[in-house]
Amino acid sequence: MIYLDNNATTKVDERVLDAMLPFLKEDYANPSSMYDFAKKPAAAIKEARVKVRDLLGASNEKDIYFTSCGSESANTAIKGVLNCNREKKHIITTKVEHPCVLNTYKELEKNGYEVDYISVNSQGELDIEEFKQKLRKDTALVSIMYANNETGVIYPVEEIGEYIKSKSPETRFFVDAVQAAGKIPINVKDTNIDLLGISGHKFHAPKGVGVLYVKPDVRFTPLINGGHQERGLRAGTENVPYIVGIGKAAELAKDALDYELKEVKRLRDKLEEGILKNVFNARLNSSINKRVPNTSNIGFEYVEGELILLHLSDIGVCASSGSACTSGSLEPSHVLRAMGVPFTALHGSIRFSLSRFTKESDIDFVIENMPKIMDKLTSISPFQDELMELRKRKGL
Amino acid sequence: MIYLDNNATTKVDERVLDAMLPFLKEDYANPSSMYDFAKKPAAAIKEARVKVRDLLGASNEKDIYFTSCGSESANTAIKGVLNCNREKKHIITTKVEHPCVLNTYKELEKNGYEVDYISVNSQGELDIEEFKQKLRKDTALVSIMYANNETGVIYPVEEIGEYIKSKSPETRFFVDAVQAAGKIPINVKDTNIDLLGISGHKFHAPKGVGVLYVKPDVRFTPLINGGHQERGLRAGTENVPYIVGIGKAAELAKDALDYELKEVKRLRDKLEEGILKNVFNARLNSSINKRVPNTSNIGFEYVEGELILLHLSDIGVCASSGSACTSGSLEPSHVLRAMGVPFTALHGSIRFSLSRFTKESDIDFVIENMPKIMDKLTSISPFQDELMELRKRKGL
Repeated sequence: MIYLDNNATTKVDERVLDAMLPFLKEDYANPSSMYDFAKKPAAAIKEARVKVRDLLGASNEKDIYFTSCGSESANTAIKGVLNCNREKKHIITTKVEHPCVLNTYKELEKNGYEVDYISVNSQGELDIEEFKQKLRKDTALVSIMYANNETGVIYPVEEIGEYIKSKSPETRFFVDAVQAAGKIPINVKDTNIDLLGISGHKFHAPKGVGVLYVKPDVRFTPLINGGHQERGLRAGTENVPYIVGIGKAAELAKDALDYELKEVKRLRDKLEEGILKNVFNARLNSSINKRVPNTSNIGFEYVEGELILLHLSDIGVCASSGSACTSGSLEPSHVLRAMGVPFTALHGSIRFSLSRFTKESDIDFVIENMPKIMDKLTSISPFQDELMELRKRKGL
Repeated sequence: MIYLDNNATTKVDERVLDAMLPFLKEDYANPSSMYDFAKKPAAAIKEARVKVRDLLGASNEKDIYFTSCGSESANTAIKGVLNCNREKKHIITTKVEHPCVLNTYKELEKNGYEVDYISVNSQGELDIEEFKQKLRKDTALVSIMYANNETGVIYPVEEIGEYIKSKSPETRFFVDAVQAAGKIPINVKDTNIDLLGISGHKFHAPKGVGVLYVKPDVRFTPLINGGHQERGLRAGTENVPYIVGIGKAAELAKDALDYELKEVKRLRDKLEEGILKNVFNARLNSSINKRVPNTSNIGFEYVEGELILLHLSDIGVCASSGSACTSGSLEPSHVLRAMGVPFTALHGSIRFSLSRFTKESDIDFVIENMPKIMDKLTSISPFQDELMELRKRKGL
C-alpha cells in the first residue's frame, strides 16, 4: 500500500501511540480528581500543552486549548469571537477555505452576518488587493487559512495580520492552520494572529483531537459550556490519551520540520516532475512556489477523477480528488473552481500528499504507473482529437 | 489501588482497547476516502453505531450521532433544538443537572431564555408536581437527567416523557443519560425521549467520545458546522478508534447489565451498610431505592470532605466529593444543597461509585478502614459535644 493522502489523514506515529498507551491502560484517572492517582494524567496534559506551545511558537502554554478536532477549533474561534462582539456583523474570508470554515459562514449569513469571500488567481494565490479593499472598521473577523488543503498553497497570513493591525486593530484574525502545522514553521507570538486552529491527525496524532491557540487578550465564548476544563472555555472531561498524543506529535513534528522542508519536498517535487513530464494530459493546478512541501495537485485533462482514483486504488495507491470532507458529493472542488481550473481538467484533478513516512520507492512506483493508467483511461475517452492535440504538444 | 470513583471516569476495558488498536495502527484511513483502504474504518463506524443503538434500545442506528463527549452531546441537543424553534423561549430543567447542562442554561438565560429549575426533596427525588405546574404550551425544551451523578438517584424520565407528550406535544425532551448508560436498562424507542446523551468514559470506553441519540422527526442544528460527517450534523473527521471503542463498550455494557444490577448492587449495598453501621457520624445522602446500582453518597458529619479524600488517597482509595467537573472549587455540591443536606454533613459528603471491576476485597478494605479514618479526623474536630451526641445515638 502506498499512502499519498496525508492531507486527508496521517498514520499515527508509533512513538505517539507509545506515549498514549499508559493513559488508555493503567493511568485512567480523571485529571480533575483530587487523589494522587490523578496527578500523572494532570501532569501529562500540562506537558502536552507545552509541546504544542513550542510547535506553534506561542509565548505561553495557557494560550493553548485542546479541542476534539480542527472543525471544533474553527467553530469555537469563529462563533466564540463573534459572540463577544455582537454589534459588528462583517466578516472577511476566502473562497477556498475548508468546509468547516465556509459552512460556518454560510450559517452565519442566515443570521444577519455579511461575509466577503476573497478570490484566488489561477495559481491559487490570494487576491491581497481585494482583501485590502474589503477590510472595514466594522469588520468583526478576518479568517484566512494558513495553507490550502487541496493545493498546498501558502497564504501570507503574517502580512495580512500586520495589515489588519494597522488599519482596523479591533478586527479579530483567525487562521485555520490545519494544513500548515508540521509542514512549515509557525511562530504565532511574532504575528498579529489572534486565533489559530490545528488538527492532530494531520501530523501523525490520532483523529479526534485538535488545538485552538488564542492570544491572551482575545475574548471568546465557549462552544461547549459545562465544567471548568480548559480554563472554563471548553467543557468535557479531558481526552488525556489524545492530548498526550497531540503533544508528542507536536514535539516530533517540530523535530521533523527540516526533513519535511527538504526531503519530503524533494520527493514531492520528484513525483510532480515525473508525472508532468511523462503523462501527456497532466497539468499542475497551483503555484510552483509558496506551497507546503508535501502537496501536489495535478489535473489530468479529459478524464474523470473518480476513475483515476479507482485505478490507483487497484494498484494500492491512495490519493484523493478534493478534500475527504467533501468526498461523496459529485460537485467538483470549490477550490479548483475558484482558481478557474478549466472544465477539461477540473473533474480529473488528483491531490497527492506525502508525509515523512513516504518512501522514494513509493514515488518511483507512482511515476512508473501513472502513464499506463492514463493511457488506458484516455483510450476510452470521447475526446480523442483533443487528446491527440495534447500528445503532440508535449511530444509524448 | 482501590478505585471507587467510577462516576468520574472508568478504566478502559481491555477488550475495548483491543478493538480500538488496529485503528490506531495500520487501519488509519479517513473513513470518508474513496479507496479500498478506507472501507474497513467506514464499516467499523457502522458496526459501532449498531452496537450503541442496541445499548440504548433505539429503533435505527441512523438516530445515533457520535460526539466528542457527554458535554458536547448535551450542548448539541440543547442549543440545536432551540435553534430550530426560536419563537419559544421557555425551558424546564432541574436544580441537580450536571454542569454541562446547568451552565448551558445559565448562558441561555443571558440571551432571553426563561428557565425553570425543578426542586428535589431530601432524598434527591424530583418534585414531579412542580414540574407539571411549570410545563407550558410555549415550553421549547424539557431537560431532565436520567440518573444523578452525585447521588445515583434515578428520575422517572419515561413518565415525564409521557406527560409532556400528552400536555404539550411540541415541547422537546432531552435526557442526559451519562450516569444511566451501562448501569440500568435504557429503551428509548418505547419512550417519548426526543434526545438522549451518553459519554463513553463512564462505561469503560476512553475519555473523549460521546453519543447523542435523536429521534428521526426531531430537528436540530449542528454545534460544529463543516463536512458531511454524521449526516451533516456533526462535522470533523470521525474519531474511528474511539467510535469503535464506544461501540465495543456498549456491547459489553449491555452484556454486563445483569451483573451490574445484581453483583455491583450487592457490593454497593454492602459498602453502604458497612459504613453506615460502623461509622458513627455517617448518614446516607439519598433515597435507598430508585438509584443506579453503583453509587452511594454518604455524609460524614462535622468533617471536611477534602480531608477525608486525602486520608482515603493515602491508603490507596479513590473516591470523590461531588463531581470531578466541579472539583477544584470550594463551593459545596449544588446537588446536595438542592436536597437540603444539613450544613453539618454538606462539606463532608463522599461519593463512592463502583464498577464491574470492583472486587469484594476492595469493599471490605474500605469498610474496615473508614471507621479508623473517621476516628482520627473527628478527634481534631472542634465539634466534640455534637460528635459525642452522635456516638451515643448510634451506640458506637
